[in-house]
Amino acid sequence: MSSDSGSAIQKRFGENLRSIRKSKGLSQETLALICGLDRTYIGGVERGERNISLVNIVKIAQSLGVEAKDFF
Amino acid sequence: MSSDSGSAIQKRFGENLRSIRKSKGLSQETLALICGLDRTYIGGVERGERNISLVNIVKIAQSLGVEAKDFF
Repeated sequence: MSSDSGSAIQKRFGENLRSIRKSKGLSQETLALICGLDRTYIGGVERGERNISLVNIVKIAQSLGVEAKDFF
Repeated sequence: MSSDSGSAIQKRFGENLRSIRKSKGLSQETLALICGLDRTYIGGVERGERNISLVNIVKIAQSLGVEAKDFF
């Protein structure tokens, strides 16, 4: 089966998140405050360093006013 | 901010996964074998008991021949 590596998956997701966050004019700090997550956590996800969980994916999407599927 | 609870998020995701898996005619056992994950793990995700990670979401989607966004 051909499949992406975990790090490639995380990197692509992080790039999509960063792009959507910037399109909303929000800093990592502001997004982190809205989500109730740490800014360094948001930064780590955007850099593809973290394997974010389902619940945090949806919480960040709701904080940005988008659908979780928009990250994929 | 209005937002779904973690358990509601997990339950909705699990229902979508189960529906897509069944539409492909796959058992939990077969899907687990293709993904390299445990059948009890797949079952737990489908029942909304587990907060699945990004990498496993994408790996399960690839194993089912769908896009990760189809689960949302």
